[in-house]
Amino acid sequence: MTLPKLNVKRANGEALYSQLVKQLEAAIETGELKDGERLPSERDLAERLGLSRTTVVNTYRELESCGLVRSHVGRGTFVCASLEPNEAPFAWRGKLSAGIAHLSHDPAMRQLMRDVANPDMISFTAGAPAIECFPLDQYRQLMDGVLRRSADLALGNAPTEGQPGLRKAISNYFGAKPEQVLILSGAQQGLDLIARCLLDQGDAVVIDRPGYVGAIQTFRLAGANLIGWDVVRADLGELEDLILRYRPKLIYTNPTFQNPTGRILPLWERKEMLRLAARYRVPIVEDDPYSETYLDTPPPTSLYHLDSHRIVIYLSTLSKTFAPGIRLGWLVASAYVVEQLTSIKQRENLFTEGLGQLVVAEFLQRGLFKDHLLSLRKEHSRKLNILSQAIDRYLPPKTLEFAQPQGGLYLWCRLGREVEGERLLQDSLRSGVAFANGEMFYSDGAGRQELRLCFSQVPGGKIEEGIRRLSQALEASRTSQAAHDTATVPLV
Amino acid sequence: MTLPKLNVKRANGEALYSQLVKQLEAAIETGELKDGERLPSERDLAERLGLSRTTVVNTYRELESCGLVRSHVGRGTFVCASLEPNEAPFAWRGKLSAGIAHLSHDPAMRQLMRDVANPDMISFTAGAPAIECFPLDQYRQLMDGVLRRSADLALGNAPTEGQPGLRKAISNYFGAKPEQVLILSGAQQGLDLIARCLLDQGDAVVIDRPGYVGAIQTFRLAGANLIGWDVVRADLGELEDLILRYRPKLIYTNPTFQNPTGRILPLWERKEMLRLAARYRVPIVEDDPYSETYLDTPPPTSLYHLDSHRIVIYLSTLSKTFAPGIRLGWLVASAYVVEQLTSIKQRENLFTEGLGQLVVAEFLQRGLFKDHLLSLRKEHSRKLNILSQAIDRYLPPKTLEFAQPQGGLYLWCRLGREVEGERLLQDSLRSGVAFANGEMFYSDGAGRQELRLCFSQVPGGKIEEGIRRLSQALEASRTSQAAHDTATVPLV
Repeated sequence: MTLPKLNVKRANGEALYSQLVKQLEAAIETGELKDGERLPSERDLAERLGLSRTTVVNTYRELESCGLVRSHVGRGTFVCASLEPNEAPFAWRGKLSAGIAHLSHDPAMRQLMRDVANPDMISFTAGAPAIECFPLDQYRQLMDGVLRRSADLALGNAPTEGQPGLRKAISNYFGAKPEQVLILSGAQQGLDLIARCLLDQGDAVVIDRPGYVGAIQTFRLAGANLIGWDVVRADLGELEDLILRYRPKLIYTNPTFQNPTGRILPLWERKEMLRLAARYRVPIVEDDPYSETYLDTPPPTSLYHLDSHRIVIYLSTLSKTFAPGIRLGWLVASAYVVEQLTSIKQRENLFTEGLGQLVVAEFLQRGLFKDHLLSLRKEHSRKLNILSQAIDRYLPPKTLEFAQPQGGLYLWCRLGREVEGERLLQDSLRSGVAFANGEMFYSDGAGRQELRLCFSQVPGGKIEEGIRRLSQALEASRTSQAAHDTATVPLV
Repeated sequence: MTLPKLNVKRANGEALYSQLVKQLEAAIETGELKDGERLPSERDLAERLGLSRTTVVNTYRELESCGLVRSHVGRGTFVCASLEPNEAPFAWRGKLSAGIAHLSHDPAMRQLMRDVANPDMISFTAGAPAIECFPLDQYRQLMDGVLRRSADLALGNAPTEGQPGLRKAISNYFGAKPEQVLILSGAQQGLDLIARCLLDQGDAVVIDRPGYVGAIQTFRLAGANLIGWDVVRADLGELEDLILRYRPKLIYTNPTFQNPTGRILPLWERKEMLRLAARYRVPIVEDDPYSETYLDTPPPTSLYHLDSHRIVIYLSTLSKTFAPGIRLGWLVASAYVVEQLTSIKQRENLFTEGLGQLVVAEFLQRGLFKDHLLSLRKEHSRKLNILSQAIDRYLPPKTLEFAQPQGGLYLWCRLGREVEGERLLQDSLRSGVAFANGEMFYSDGAGRQELRLCFSQVPGGKIEEGIRRLSQALEASRTSQAAHDTATVPLV
């Protein structure tokens, strides 16, 4: 780099450090020093200018506190003062906390939330139940009743732990004491609270591989070192090895109709996992949004209910059985853990929206949830059949293979070798169909030949058309992939 | 301490470290080593047992990873394995992250949320608007309409940034572009996102003194070093000194009807604050829940609208003008900042509850909010008058002094010298009346002679009775304080 002319004088009445700050600041503002440029090391600059190293250290620190430069240990100090993308005239980028500055802003999940709003897109991406089963009239009636009887409760300030009525209803439903239940503004909040409560930067977390993308992202935000445990092999010996090798702070797993694979961890493996966790004293976070979505046969008992050591933190949500927009999740754990998590929740968003809590409490107490689940299961079975048949009809054999799921909302598919998921996704979006790319579910870049289709959310009448579009996209991808492969064959 | 008998043998085929772990583990489990007991230093134990220091270091690390002990730099290693309070049979306490383990679990705010539910208590504690002004019928009608027309939107997955309709409605209302608006699950979430985005452990934050308790708690969770700026003096020279001395990462302020003091930062001081912030490149977080609650005269222009440098992050909420239970807040900032915060929000709770967003969007778009504010201001004026008169009637002169607020929800009171706030609070709770203790609003333990009364939330007909109870409590406190003061006079 060429350094701007720096002219620091001992005798002009102004501190050397202050002169140097001003001159570097000016050079950054005029663009003489450009965004991303590396400044000389402190030692080097001190020598060049005949200054003490302390003067230069203080100068750089001052510039950093102004957001004009940013130091990275072992790499040096860099200018970060150009205009930000999107108009920001202030070096906001230089102000970000260390954890955020290095966070990859993977937009996949946000895109996935936005796709839903595009009426021309048939989206198999986001996980949501068949919304046409939502008992809209019942819900509206209950809501009217709550607002008539308990408007103050619904609209006023409320306990961080959740409305007492809902905690009670869930504790009855699930089988726990009310003080072990923490109401959440969505299950994702539970993951975030757990991460903030238990994880320090660099702590290892054993996590399903492939696994829920929201868990991957939240644990990453906490600075965790993610250690994948292969849920397809589901080898408990491997789990023990991982525990011994990495000493994880927690094990995160989704044992029932696992997202994305749809797998069920068998009863004896659940017991063995608990034995290992107890033996090595590693808490388990059991993420269980799907156990009520079984199609025919109820799944095995939850880890939480099998656990005699109380080392399981159980998480669930209404998002996969009722409606994601209601944003209600809950967590069950020992009262001590609930107390800690509540204390963080209070600092995170004080408490959870009131009306929805009161309505859902009534819905549960009146036993209406069980009826709703019956109609939901029926509709999910119907949609899964339509989807499987459409794949058989429109796609050539072995281009998209999957195991028939027994519950959950997803078909986890393996692509034939000739096409990669990312290429297919791009072609699909052009054809007006969307799905979740396999790579989202791996923290290590694997999953390029896999994809997830949510069968429950797309209206029944659109599923076939969606797969027809997918078959077009697949054809386009095969052609372009073949062309690409030919073009990159070495010419000698 | 007496160490249990430790018997580590070199020749028995098991690693020394492993033998030592097992023996210490056994001693902790039998209770021979008790909870909270300090273990010998690594060096010391190594010498006593004739082992290498590495062996002992590894032993302690292993025990810590099992949650059986906890090391504190400079203080030593402590046993933390007894049963937790509330039944937890597992050493959860040893599993907490460093930030949480040292967090003081100040229950004041949670108690404050719970008080609301006690029908026998007249509570001037929590800040909430006059809920009897809530336009319940209008709201229910809008809700019905939204569920009829847009149930999918209300119940389905939705963008993390917020429902597009609400972002637009707020951007029109406030005067900003929709992409500068981020919808929040309450304004508290905005504080938390800002803290996570901008603060590293130990960063200084200049904050109103006294100031909003939720901000104090959230910035503390982020590990911030809180530097109070006296809002009563509101001396900008002092602010400049604090900036120069502490190099804060941000300035947090509530310039309009400040919580708890009710003060308004005058226009010229707003401009000077912006000038300082721009000069030293310190972002300002302008927390503005109260500007629409003025009683007669609108307050000065917000810092956000005065700022030509875009260094203000603006926060507001419906909790103080509409209903806290709806949990809707919003943030306005440069699009770059909104993008960063959205990325964290996605990991925190994916997105905000849908139905409330759509109903509020309609409420704003139809211009109904302005009418609502008119009736709210009238009711707040009425209640403030009742409260002032009741204080005049029931309390002796100079026991509770305050300046008449021009807006906001609070009366910030100074207690006469003879009674301390904490003692008065305890006596008040026994008399069936509650308020917010002054100390809550200081990060440094001050405020013992102050208290905050929220005048807007208590039903008009109960305010006088509340102050009557307060006068009883005051009498009780004066008597017991006098007795206490006599008893603690030195006897010589």
